[in-house]
Amino acid sequence: MMETAFAPLDPDFDARVRASFNRQGAMLLLGATIDSLAPGCCVIVLPYREALSQQHGYFHAGITSAIADSAGGYAALTLFPSSAEVLTVEFKINLIAPAHGERLVAEGTVVRSGRTLTICTVEVSCEREGELIPCALMQQTLIRIDAK
Amino acid sequence: MMETAFAPLDPDFDARVRASFNRQGAMLLLGATIDSLAPGCCVIVLPYREALSQQHGYFHAGITSAIADSAGGYAALTLFPSSAEVLTVEFKINLIAPAHGERLVAEGTVVRSGRTLTICTVEVSCEREGELIPCALMQQTLIRIDAK
Amino acid sequence: MMETAFAPLDPDFDARVRASFNRQGAMLLLGATIDSLAPGCCVIVLPYREALSQQHGYFHAGITSAIADSAGGYAALTLFPSSAEVLTVEFKINLIAPAHGERLVAEGTVVRSGRTLTICTVEVSCEREGELIPCALMQQTLIRIDAK
Amino acid sequence: MMETAFAPLDPDFDARVRASFNRQGAMLLLGATIDSLAPGCCVIVLPYREALSQQHGYFHAGITSAIADSAGGYAALTLFPSSAEVLTVEFKINLIAPAHGERLVAEGTVVRSGRTLTICTVEVSCEREGELIPCALMQQTLIRIDAK
Repeated sequence: MMETAFAPLDPDFDARVRASFNRQGAMLLLGATIDSLAPGCCVIVLPYREALSQQHGYFHAGITSAIADSAGGYAALTLFPSSAEVLTVEFKINLIAPAHGERLVAEGTVVRSGRTLTICTVEVSCEREGELIPCALMQQTLIRIDAK
Repeated sequence: MMETAFAPLDPDFDARVRASFNRQGAMLLLGATIDSLAPGCCVIVLPYREALSQQHGYFHAGITSAIADSAGGYAALTLFPSSAEVLTVEFKINLIAPAHGERLVAEGTVVRSGRTLTICTVEVSCEREGELIPCALMQQTLIRIDAK
Repeated sequence: MMETAFAPLDPDFDARVRASFNRQGAMLLLGATIDSLAPGCCVIVLPYREALSQQHGYFHAGITSAIADSAGGYAALTLFPSSAEVLTVEFKINLIAPAHGERLVAEGTVVRSGRTLTICTVEVSCEREGELIPCALMQQTLIRIDAK
Repeated sequence: MMETAFAPLDPDFDARVRASFNRQGAMLLLGATIDSLAPGCCVIVLPYREALSQQHGYFHAGITSAIADSAGGYAALTLFPSSAEVLTVEFKINLIAPAHGERLVAEGTVVRSGRTLTICTVEVSCEREGELIPCALMQQTLIRIDAK
């Protein structure tokens, strides 16, 4: 497991985060999977197929956003207590290059983990002929919802 | 056709925008369709199914973002000359309420149409038992790419 | 007073908001004042002077952002109970035209007022020879801090 | 001079950027200065005084945004040819901690330098009793305006 600066509150965060991810019908529909998890970090990958494209045949910006949103959300969730849930408050994403390649890699990282709000950044790269080309950058705010 | 403040440069914008939309594999995969088009305006709808959900069963924030991104992008494209293409530069979206209902309705509107950049806002509502509940708000920047 | 869709929790919101505004050294330094207040709405105006300019002599984007941030923040505060404070979580602003004119007018409006988070939009116009020209658009998230 | 991955088009970028900064009345009003410049990088500092505060006595979010906007804008300008100007298209900023301290330090970095658009991130820290505490994070889009 990657080492990060964060100490998780829940030692079983890995199983808990993967179980939540597996309940996301949208990630299954797209074909996205969790590549790696660490405290405050989540990497999601998505192989290309035409069903994920925009009008020029590249990954659709909305699809790129969808896996970036999940990567940031699950990076946040790794640090929550086991009873808490995560919701996206908002995000902003720049599409910095055409997402043209064999697969997307979205790496979500917690920048600040507060009592109520968590701030993440997500870097999305597109793998093309073995090279990772940065294609999107997200800054995201999430809220922790504690069980009643 | 809805009346708007914009005069399209291309009288055939409707057919051109729908042809581009139909080339977006991602919109077909999700099941999204164009509900209405007018100069500077595009409404996209998406019926709910479990394959579009996040972990609590609501529409995934990334799916909401994907149709909002297309609604804004095609609102922009209605005003472009016939030879120009549109790309998303960036967007920011607030998820203001759980997207819990039978279908999403994303209404994209051009706020400013410049020579190079277009700014749109997109309001997304969720239809639940006949009522339209606002669930997301997007502010988006797009760039016009002229054919060489 | 302008009529809005919101009912304030604190009947004395007007005096409370103005007192808070008057404690903002930054608004005094810039020369900004509250033009009008209503439940869920706050309009701030700022006359031009060279000390507010960027390198081309227009209002600096950061100055435009500063009064827009306050307009949204105080729109949110109008709806809070008297003991609560407001903090900006984040905002996104598009500078849609050069802010070239005699004064800026920033109109903040609450879009959603939740228990913890409030979402506002702020429209900034620049008055030039009697005409109001839209120059910036902000989407903002604020948090309510309750007194302990 | 700090070493960065970027090669400037204009060998005299340092003098050119500082001259532009000195034409920003707003930076002079606030008391901000350029701390360091390198290709694709600009650091701006701002000492605290009450005239820069919000209602609780900390740096106003709008003031923090103003220097962050300039730090990103001038990071972009370091890479432009000598005849080109820079304008902010839009930015998004998260205020991640109260800006409570003796001075702000805003470090702008170019993430992608395109022909028309440049994307920057800006990290703002607040110096408090010798320690640098991260207080804001900005993601920004800028446009290059070539002289006619």
